Amino acid sequence: MNECMTSLNCSELIHNSYRLDLCTWAEVEQYLTKCKGIILPIGSTEQHGPTGAIGTDALTAEAVALEVGKRAGVLVAPTQAYGMAEHHLGFPGTMSLQSSTLLNVVHDLLLSLARHGFERVFVVNGHGGNIATVKAAFSQAYKTVLNLKLPVAAGFRCKLVSWFMVPDVFKEAKARYGNLEGQHATPSEIAVTLFLEPNLQSKQRQLPEPAPAGPIYDYQDFRQRYPDGRMGSDPFLAKPDHGEIFLDKAAIALTEDLLNFLKEL
Amino acid sequence: MNECMTSLNCSELIHNSYRLDLCTWAEVEQYLTKCKGIILPIGSTEQHGPTGAIGTDALTAEAVALEVGKRAGVLVAPTQAYGMAEHHLGFPGTMSLQSSTLLNVVHDLLLSLARHGFERVFVVNGHGGNIATVKAAFSQAYKTVLNLKLPVAAGFRCKLVSWFMVPDVFKEAKARYGNLEGQHATPSEIAVTLFLEPNLQSKQRQLPEPAPAGPIYDYQDFRQRYPDGRMGSDPFLAKPDHGEIFLDKAAIALTEDLLNFLKEL
Amino acid sequence: MNECMTSLNCSELIHNSYRLDLCTWAEVEQYLTKCKGIILPIGSTEQHGPTGAIGTDALTAEAVALEVGKRAGVLVAPTQAYGMAEHHLGFPGTMSLQSSTLLNVVHDLLLSLARHGFERVFVVNGHGGNIATVKAAFSQAYKTVLNLKLPVAAGFRCKLVSWFMVPDVFKEAKARYGNLEGQHATPSEIAVTLFLEPNLQSKQRQLPEPAPAGPIYDYQDFRQRYPDGRMGSDPFLAKPDHGEIFLDKAAIALTEDLLNFLKEL
Amino acid sequence: MNECMTSLNCSELIHNSYRLDLCTWAEVEQYLTKCKGIILPIGSTEQHGPTGAIGTDALTAEAVALEVGKRAGVLVAPTQAYGMAEHHLGFPGTMSLQSSTLLNVVHDLLLSLARHGFERVFVVNGHGGNIATVKAAFSQAYKTVLNLKLPVAAGFRCKLVSWFMVPDVFKEAKARYGNLEGQHATPSEIAVTLFLEPNLQSKQRQLPEPAPAGPIYDYQDFRQRYPDGRMGSDPFLAKPDHGEIFLDKAAIALTEDLLNFLKEL
Amino acid sequence: MNECMTSLNCSELIHNSYRLDLCTWAEVEQYLTKCKGIILPIGSTEQHGPTGAIGTDALTAEAVALEVGKRAGVLVAPTQAYGMAEHHLGFPGTMSLQSSTLLNVVHDLLLSLARHGFERVFVVNGHGGNIATVKAAFSQAYKTVLNLKLPVAAGFRCKLVSWFMVPDVFKEAKARYGNLEGQHATPSEIAVTLFLEPNLQSKQRQLPEPAPAGPIYDYQDFRQRYPDGRMGSDPFLAKPDHGEIFLDKAAIALTEDLLNFLKEL
Amino acid sequence: MNECMTSLNCSELIHNSYRLDLCTWAEVEQYLTKCKGIILPIGSTEQHGPTGAIGTDALTAEAVALEVGKRAGVLVAPTQAYGMAEHHLGFPGTMSLQSSTLLNVVHDLLLSLARHGFERVFVVNGHGGNIATVKAAFSQAYKTVLNLKLPVAAGFRCKLVSWFMVPDVFKEAKARYGNLEGQHATPSEIAVTLFLEPNLQSKQRQLPEPAPAGPIYDYQDFRQRYPDGRMGSDPFLAKPDHGEIFLDKAAIALTEDLLNFLKEL
Repeated sequence: MNECMTSLNCSELIHNSYRLDLCTWAEVEQYLTKCKGIILPIGSTEQHGPTGAIGTDALTAEAVALEVGKRAGVLVAPTQAYGMAEHHLGFPGTMSLQSSTLLNVVHDLLLSLARHGFERVFVVNGHGGNIATVKAAFSQAYKTVLNLKLPVAAGFRCKLVSWFMVPDVFKEAKARYGNLEGQHATPSEIAVTLFLEPNLQSKQRQLPEPAPAGPIYDYQDFRQRYPDGRMGSDPFLAKPDHGEIFLDKAAIALTEDLLNFLKEL
Repeated sequence: MNECMTSLNCSELIHNSYRLDLCTWAEVEQYLTKCKGIILPIGSTEQHGPTGAIGTDALTAEAVALEVGKRAGVLVAPTQAYGMAEHHLGFPGTMSLQSSTLLNVVHDLLLSLARHGFERVFVVNGHGGNIATVKAAFSQAYKTVLNLKLPVAAGFRCKLVSWFMVPDVFKEAKARYGNLEGQHATPSEIAVTLFLEPNLQSKQRQLPEPAPAGPIYDYQDFRQRYPDGRMGSDPFLAKPDHGEIFLDKAAIALTEDLLNFLKEL
Repeated sequence: MNECMTSLNCSELIHNSYRLDLCTWAEVEQYLTKCKGIILPIGSTEQHGPTGAIGTDALTAEAVALEVGKRAGVLVAPTQAYGMAEHHLGFPGTMSLQSSTLLNVVHDLLLSLARHGFERVFVVNGHGGNIATVKAAFSQAYKTVLNLKLPVAAGFRCKLVSWFMVPDVFKEAKARYGNLEGQHATPSEIAVTLFLEPNLQSKQRQLPEPAPAGPIYDYQDFRQRYPDGRMGSDPFLAKPDHGEIFLDKAAIALTEDLLNFLKEL
Repeated sequence: MNECMTSLNCSELIHNSYRLDLCTWAEVEQYLTKCKGIILPIGSTEQHGPTGAIGTDALTAEAVALEVGKRAGVLVAPTQAYGMAEHHLGFPGTMSLQSSTLLNVVHDLLLSLARHGFERVFVVNGHGGNIATVKAAFSQAYKTVLNLKLPVAAGFRCKLVSWFMVPDVFKEAKARYGNLEGQHATPSEIAVTLFLEPNLQSKQRQLPEPAPAGPIYDYQDFRQRYPDGRMGSDPFLAKPDHGEIFLDKAAIALTEDLLNFLKEL
Repeated sequence: MNECMTSLNCSELIHNSYRLDLCTWAEVEQYLTKCKGIILPIGSTEQHGPTGAIGTDALTAEAVALEVGKRAGVLVAPTQAYGMAEHHLGFPGTMSLQSSTLLNVVHDLLLSLARHGFERVFVVNGHGGNIATVKAAFSQAYKTVLNLKLPVAAGFRCKLVSWFMVPDVFKEAKARYGNLEGQHATPSEIAVTLFLEPNLQSKQRQLPEPAPAGPIYDYQDFRQRYPDGRMGSDPFLAKPDHGEIFLDKAAIALTEDLLNFLKEL
Repeated sequence: MNECMTSLNCSELIHNSYRLDLCTWAEVEQYLTKCKGIILPIGSTEQHGPTGAIGTDALTAEAVALEVGKRAGVLVAPTQAYGMAEHHLGFPGTMSLQSSTLLNVVHDLLLSLARHGFERVFVVNGHGGNIATVKAAFSQAYKTVLNLKLPVAAGFRCKLVSWFMVPDVFKEAKARYGNLEGQHATPSEIAVTLFLEPNLQSKQRQLPEPAPAGPIYDYQDFRQRYPDGRMGSDPFLAKPDHGEIFLDKAAIALTEDLLNFLKEL
């Protein structure tokens, strides 16, 4: 059994929650004597088509992260709800950090964790647009950790996983929706939100037009190209029970991924 | 009756929730035809004494914001869970953005809102350490909005309110706890978290030493000065039902504040 | 007697001036063997109503700082004449640093002092608009000092005081001018400039309209709201002899403040 | 006669001073209807050898700027007392902005002036170490002015002059001091400070060792190479009356320079 | 036939070279009347194992870019020889830009091109470590182009291609080298350099140890994990004639890619 | 004989080339045991009049650097082809980094070299517009090297040389072309490009108008003032054989310069 899975004595106190925000600093201090891993969920606040929730990427990343945390017995930090969504700014409600800002956010959070002695940061991501910037942030954080000669320097490592790119999740989505899975406002991510927030089902409706597919450039171009915000997807196919399955498949794969990451020499 | 209170037709769909993350972009577009206001909660992820939750400032800011949003009928954006908590980095679990990073985060979020036509951003803050940086960010955001000549430029305004500094809240806290309210890990904020997350009560315990009071400098100095993280407070005095009262008093005052802000010419 | 008050042997040479800019580096080296404190005045270069001097905030901060330096026997660094005055840019002559720029200026100056072994930096401020940014800068400077492991790290501290917010100054202003003290281009600050630069009296004149009061947003809004630059004030009430009194009251209180700061463990 | 020389009606009010900080915004507004030029002095706060004042570069730049302003009838902005003096940080009392910070300071000040309609900014510099950064700032400011399409964009121009590099000043210094003029803590600049602040004479003394000459790298290397801070100079040769002559020669040449700059198409 | 392929009248003058650096501005002006596309090669200067050239990524990106430019008749900008190679800094000779720096470099180059009216920028990349940052830079550049309302705003698009990830190249490499293609200092990229710089063959030698495979974290970890710099590869398999084939396969695929990009509506 | 001239055993392997990009990291490691010097060429990609190549400054800086490297036996890093050319952005084809970007580029490259133990970086520059920024970057790099306490800190030094400002080059240019050497698109630099790239001769032609001389402000002003891009020069005077002479004179002087720099205590 993984040490992390047994280490958090505070778990009884907080009823099997591994939410960092519900721990005290003393509990974290104790946790660190046994386990050096932590999960950091990162989402985005951006349009998800005419029927999808703006918070889809944060809701799903958080749910996956909490599920993985529970299964692996690893702490989960609060969700960074805002990501890099510049290309969605053509749709009301999208709130985006510039790449350079998100880079600094992730850098600062990683440095905070490194100072405390966390050695494995497992970033669970809900938005494709974050990937480039988060990776760039890893590189800057590694540099700073070495520059500051933090005690953790010899073993500090970060890993980025995007739940929707987990092979079993992707396979499942293709099996269920075929090409109508699309690239944005996909039925798979919408399904997870329907499972998490059943009230969202009332927004679901059949959309008259199929969604076009294509490339992503700036936000004006995006809105022109994808007038209702979807990219090649039919989110009406999504059902809450699919969401539960996607969540489970993501959690299974990522828990294994995390445990390997924690064991990595 | 405030137009904002009636404008969000989507409210029925989402069962009286005014959470932006549960809206679609189309609902936000419609909302903007009636109401130009939005609430942005900002917290912090930092130690709150030996018995308080690390997420206290985000949990409380979010709860107050959602309550104000419901009463005023105004949309509430997702909570920025990470703030400027550099002076708490001496305690494990604290995750802090540097001032310059937080400044850019708030700037980018305000700019996103301004682009969509929001004219009144009401920032509900849960952490004293954020105040300076958020104000600095307002000033940079105003400049950018003018520089870009956004259509909203003539009327774009931001207002920062810290729920724990609401006079009625502060008065109530003093009446209940006297000087043991203190400056950090205060019974009033802990009480709100106990009300929100009843499981947190299991962490409460009488602390042997009174907490010293004093100034704030760097995080090494902070830990030396305040060895268990509290500043002048006795969080053991906090009870869940106090929390409900604080939340209500904050919501009453800030709802009025927000409605005045929305009506302001 | 405070050690600082006796330590600057160069004081005889420079006729009781404690201006850093009139010292040699060798004198500063000698000073540091006895006293670790220094005063850093920061002002702003911005409109002060139709009759007030654009340099009001720098002139007053410098005068207060030099007076406190003389009384406490503590060195006074040159005045940073430019501050964060973005909201006054609608009026010709205002010269403003962006928040992010001022943050770096203050950071760099504090770091220079920390390298030399100064342990207490007392920032005397003349402009409300600087407060947020200077505080944010303190936080970044503390972090850098710790990151660099400077010898001074264990004891480096900064304190921000705004002379116009000194309780005795504020009380005096209210007693003399009541509500006509206002928020900007106040008779109290104008009075200090009249005392310092008697020629400024020739600009004084009764203004036909009372000044409106209200909030501060961007600089276009500011000029519309406050067409002549005053906020709720009647600077015509200011007299040079009042200025002398304000200066004295500020100096008394801040000298005590500084001496306590220097003695602080 | 230059229009600028007659335009500032406020000059009678302020007794022939052309200090921007003693003007009101309304006077500046009026001034701008006649003259588009302004002088911006920039100094440094850095060691100037064992007998020279730390403020030498700011004191001299300000004096030259005010003299040129008076002769040309052109407004003089407050002195930016802090410049780029990183290589002097090995000597106590030096306070330096990093290049990137100074770049932003100068950028922001130039932008403020451009917004008001100033078209010719004449930067009077007292420190060789500022030159590179100020020039880099000009380039960034021009870009921003064009990007923002400010009304002044077609004619906004900046010019950097260093008073100590004025040919007539340099020739005079060589004639008086030969090679002992040196590169830093030169008798010419010290002479100007002795003229401006006669008390500084008491610090003058014959130094036993000649000062070495050589290159400038980092501040540790600098202190090792130039143990008392001088570079190739003998500041003991400086006399107050020389200072008056240097000041006059600088003012004559730079006034002509400025008037040509203002007339430039 | 693609218009770009005929438009550059200067091609005869410069003997079929499409190097921007050998054109005059007038030729570029003329080119832009016919073709809005340009190729920007980006490499890296980093260790490539014990026998590979430090410039491998720049040499190969430049060669591919020039070949594509010649075939498509599209201008090729100079190669940005320095990229993001932070994880290789443990090996002498590696010269790396931080992510944030590279982001600004690419942003500034794209903005320069957008100002001139280029509408399609085809970035040919030679280094995996650049991908994240270049994508982040695209997003910032799109934002700036829209913010500045450049005439090109409606149609400005960038595309990143990494020659070693072209399917036909990758397939060929796998067919030739199997798993010994590896991840870094791969025989395929080394082969291209041997073809381009035959003298490099003299450095080739059989390496005694197989190269380990694994993840990438910081540069200390990298050197420990991959002591001679290779990741899972056997560069000794590389032959110059393979290089010619890889170059040709990359050029065929990317020329088609580019022509489609140019035709894209 | 200079140790550097004998140290690079790899020179036989790479046929007397001292190009870093053609070395392996192991060769660089070996080189560093004998020689701590390296040459870094920096150019610009900007208009050079109606007949000059856009890459003139990079082509010439690279050629001079390689020649100096060969003569001194010192490694030459790849050319940074993009510099600070903001004022040339009015002409198609110019690609410019902002000052702040170039500052970071040079900083990062210097830091990479310092980490490896290089102690003398000789920057060979081809463009006047880079000088200010490169000098500012030196200052920031020195600071970082000291802050990080790199082993090389005590002896890390950088030197900037612009080949066109070498006295013997300048004298030769004046002797050949008199005032028609001008300031930009000068016959001397064009001559070097004609020598390096003979095909460029076909672009040479007599220009009808003499080129005006004058100051440099922003890029709109530049294009208005210098409609064909030349400043005071007649590039038609340039001949390839002149280029060879300029190159030789630059190489002679700079080789001596470099050898002195390497020997400097």
